[in-house]
Amino acid sequence: MNVNKLKNYFPIFEWGVNYNKLTFSNDIMAALIVTIMLVPQSLAYAMLAGLPPEMGLYASMLPIILYAIFGTSRTLAVGPVAVVSLLTAASIGKFALPGSSEYIIAAITLAFMSGIFLIILGFFKLGFLANFLSHPVISGFITASGIIIVTSQLKHILGVNSSGHNLIEIISVLFSNINDFSFITFAIGISTILFLFWVRNGLYPLLLSVGFKRHSASLISKIGPVAAIIASTIFVWFFKLDFYGVKIVGEVPKGLPSLSVPSFSFSVWNSLIGSAILLSLIGFVESISVAQTLAAKRRQRINPDQELIGLGMANLGAAFSSGLPVTGGFSRSVVNYDAGAETPAAGAFTAIGLCLVSLFLTPLIFFLPKATLAATIIVAVISLIDFSILKKTWFYSKADFMAVFLTILVTLVIGVEAGVIAGILTSILIHIFKTSRPHIAVVGQVPKTEHFRNVSRHNVITDPKILTIRVDESLYFANTRFLEDRIYKEISKKLDLEHVVIMCSAINTIDMSALASLELINERLIISGVKFHLSEVKGPVLDKLKGTNFINKLSGQIFQSQFQTNSLTK
Amino acid sequence: MNVNKLKNYFPIFEWGVNYNKLTFSNDIMAALIVTIMLVPQSLAYAMLAGLPPEMGLYASMLPIILYAIFGTSRTLAVGPVAVVSLLTAASIGKFALPGSSEYIIAAITLAFMSGIFLIILGFFKLGFLANFLSHPVISGFITASGIIIVTSQLKHILGVNSSGHNLIEIISVLFSNINDFSFITFAIGISTILFLFWVRNGLYPLLLSVGFKRHSASLISKIGPVAAIIASTIFVWFFKLDFYGVKIVGEVPKGLPSLSVPSFSFSVWNSLIGSAILLSLIGFVESISVAQTLAAKRRQRINPDQELIGLGMANLGAAFSSGLPVTGGFSRSVVNYDAGAETPAAGAFTAIGLCLVSLFLTPLIFFLPKATLAATIIVAVISLIDFSILKKTWFYSKADFMAVFLTILVTLVIGVEAGVIAGILTSILIHIFKTSRPHIAVVGQVPKTEHFRNVSRHNVITDPKILTIRVDESLYFANTRFLEDRIYKEISKKLDLEHVVIMCSAINTIDMSALASLELINERLIISGVKFHLSEVKGPVLDKLKGTNFINKLSGQIFQSQFQTNSLTK
Repeated sequence: MNVNKLKNYFPIFEWGVNYNKLTFSNDIMAALIVTIMLVPQSLAYAMLAGLPPEMGLYASMLPIILYAIFGTSRTLAVGPVAVVSLLTAASIGKFALPGSSEYIIAAITLAFMSGIFLIILGFFKLGFLANFLSHPVISGFITASGIIIVTSQLKHILGVNSSGHNLIEIISVLFSNINDFSFITFAIGISTILFLFWVRNGLYPLLLSVGFKRHSASLISKIGPVAAIIASTIFVWFFKLDFYGVKIVGEVPKGLPSLSVPSFSFSVWNSLIGSAILLSLIGFVESISVAQTLAAKRRQRINPDQELIGLGMANLGAAFSSGLPVTGGFSRSVVNYDAGAETPAAGAFTAIGLCLVSLFLTPLIFFLPKATLAATIIVAVISLIDFSILKKTWFYSKADFMAVFLTILVTLVIGVEAGVIAGILTSILIHIFKTSRPHIAVVGQVPKTEHFRNVSRHNVITDPKILTIRVDESLYFANTRFLEDRIYKEISKKLDLEHVVIMCSAINTIDMSALASLELINERLIISGVKFHLSEVKGPVLDKLKGTNFINKLSGQIFQSQFQTNSLTK
Repeated sequence: MNVNKLKNYFPIFEWGVNYNKLTFSNDIMAALIVTIMLVPQSLAYAMLAGLPPEMGLYASMLPIILYAIFGTSRTLAVGPVAVVSLLTAASIGKFALPGSSEYIIAAITLAFMSGIFLIILGFFKLGFLANFLSHPVISGFITASGIIIVTSQLKHILGVNSSGHNLIEIISVLFSNINDFSFITFAIGISTILFLFWVRNGLYPLLLSVGFKRHSASLISKIGPVAAIIASTIFVWFFKLDFYGVKIVGEVPKGLPSLSVPSFSFSVWNSLIGSAILLSLIGFVESISVAQTLAAKRRQRINPDQELIGLGMANLGAAFSSGLPVTGGFSRSVVNYDAGAETPAAGAFTAIGLCLVSLFLTPLIFFLPKATLAATIIVAVISLIDFSILKKTWFYSKADFMAVFLTILVTLVIGVEAGVIAGILTSILIHIFKTSRPHIAVVGQVPKTEHFRNVSRHNVITDPKILTIRVDESLYFANTRFLEDRIYKEISKKLDLEHVVIMCSAINTIDMSALASLELINERLIISGVKFHLSEVKGPVLDKLKGTNFINKLSGQIFQSQFQTNSLTK
């Protein structure tokens, strides 16, 4: 295997050879900041997934290192992220109870299956499957997920129990338990939320005004949430608030993750396979978008197929080190980038940082209130909620609006997986519907030119014996019947018609269905005593048509230019 | 409601006003021939569906009359057809035993649901849904169905019991019962098959040689099968072969169909809904194809939306008159046409003919051997089996070949419904896959012209600061990521690049996903210090883009012609 090929499959060889002292110190610095930021995030997203907090930490160790070896982005930071954690909870929650050992094994199995699936996609270059998740569907889904996540965390802020996989379930259970409301918990939760919003919006200008540089001010405000963690933990510990009903994280095992093995039970795999596929594709789409944005800043290249392998390895890593499904996260990657990370080694150093936390600092978070973690999640996730896509699609395309609207509605009312599937199906249906009625124009010759234009828009010359139709779309199974129908309609109206010409200047491909349709049109026009012609067929399309039955039996001719069809009347 | 509108919804007013003596006598003649031909066909297809033979007759009475009122084809003959009967058996057989009263009610309910579904499609102009059934998938499905039908009828020819919904089941049950083999049955079956093949291929030339005209010779050979019915019935009756194990049709109730009422049980509807949709769409596609072929001969017009309503009403008619699901049949329609039918009144007369048969002649078919009916089915269906679609698609498009191959394989090995669904899903997947990698060319200027061509095919001038990409496909959710990736790849390779131009001459539409992608590309190119331009954007596309965020924030310009981009370097 030559070196270039090796670089393709192990991008680490690409940047590893140029590694030096400066890149090292930059990477170390970035790793320190990201580590501080990741501790609360990791704990919080594990809690969101219904898993023990340490699993969030574990999910940011081995996965980061594996991504550093196999991934193509220099600065992407992988780990548990909000939407993937929500999907994890939704898919496992269907058949196991949060907190149970089956639940934990299911999470590990989900990460394993997701890893295998992503690697298969990458290896066979099947990344195009992610295209089924159209932009409006993803946007709608993320917004609806954000709403569900925020609602699901309200229980920690209010100190009451709740559960459920859609808005209606969560809210109704919340209300039925509202008598358990804990004022102290609520006070901690709300003040953390307010503090975090202030950190996000008010701290940065404050730091600037007291003389910090833009860059450091921005980074400090990014790690601000840790202050909330520390303050609220000390507060709870000092006043022994856990005796007054404030729920705390409790004992988090000290030490490195132990080796975990996914389940290979058929029934578990059968229940998880659909979720694993959805989760993988959504994670991939989110991750590659972050990676490409960051890469553009330094004109670096992201290879989507290799990204699939990188993310797949990261998930396998999570599966074997007691983690949960992971993907590239937006905020952590941006912080990593802004903190000056130059190579994936920064990720590896972050992993080491988290190992140290896990080895020595977990006893310190015993008194960390769950309300603080919930507040962290809520503040992080509220920025995902963005209804502007509804407005945008409404003005640009009502059909896309329908897809977004349905995605949001189904996600909120039925659940996240149903929402994604509804979105995908609607997108496909809409695409087939739209392309099933392509723009078709009857054209005529613009006087004294060789140009042919739409008869209903321009003053053009037509011949009653010739009908020329321009189709502004490639011909494929969804739209051929429409074309057929249009032609039959025209010939039933115009009884002195002798020639039908299809002007193919906008036809990029003709699939087998369309070919069969053209054959049928030709046969039927022969029966009707009308000749069938094509004009302006593109080179690649003509190459494919050559030698087919259709061309062999075509009653008319193939004209290079539409202008040449004038010879038909001479 | 004005008269023209009335004509749209009740095509009968279109042809009814011009009805005269000549059309009447032509229609009566056609009806007589079609009636003779339909008797064995109707009995046979009811048997194929696992239903009592009289239901086949009933399904050709009221449905034909309703189609005559609501349908747009002048000569289409509706009734039970092979593929629809097979689908009926497959869908009902899942939860009821052939011969049981639940089975019969399920068939009636299926016809009812199919009728309602078709009428809804027609009313809301949703006929495009039939486009999901691409031509290769339909061809493959019909061929595979033909094989299953032929195999399923072998039991009647061999005189043994069999059952099952796919090739493997049917054949294995057949072999396990092979000891019941009845030689007399086999002799009747095989000689009928041979006779029918001779009627099809040998009778016509014989009739010509003895002086018949082409037209009459052709029609006589079409009604030849009746001779087999009469001969084998007399043969069985005379030799009392029913005592020697030859299975006969037995008692068929005399008289007109009684009013039947579909089931409205939720569980029945739930089990049948998917089948009803598939069956309706397949029936519609088959029917409209026949109707259009016949209409082309007389330059008449078929209105697909009204056809849906016509077929829907026919199925409702079947549901309320103890029939089974129906659609327009190929052979009966061709015979109707060839026999000189001029208006749908011929269909009404056929219905009257069948009523007379049902009122007076059913005792005559008591001794009709089932082997004869099976032979009728086999000979009719063998012409449906056509593997040439495999060869055609193999040469034209490997992807379409895959769709056909999978449809045939799944239909044969798993069952008819699974086969259709596999075919539909594969077609969509293939379409998304193919359009997800559109043809993209980097173009340059042909020296001394204003034309721009593919750099890898022509000797053209390019500027290292400008990259011009021509996309030969409309932009939509399936292919935007491919375009994005291509652009990012190019800018990561060419570090002195300052401008990226997308030449949009072949882009017919830009959906919301693609718009979002263009926005992203623009943003990322701004970060990379590259300006983003479009050229040769089509009118309708530009109209939609106006006022969007993308255009407002576009870093570059929109050039009317690609040639104008040369101003970028000045």
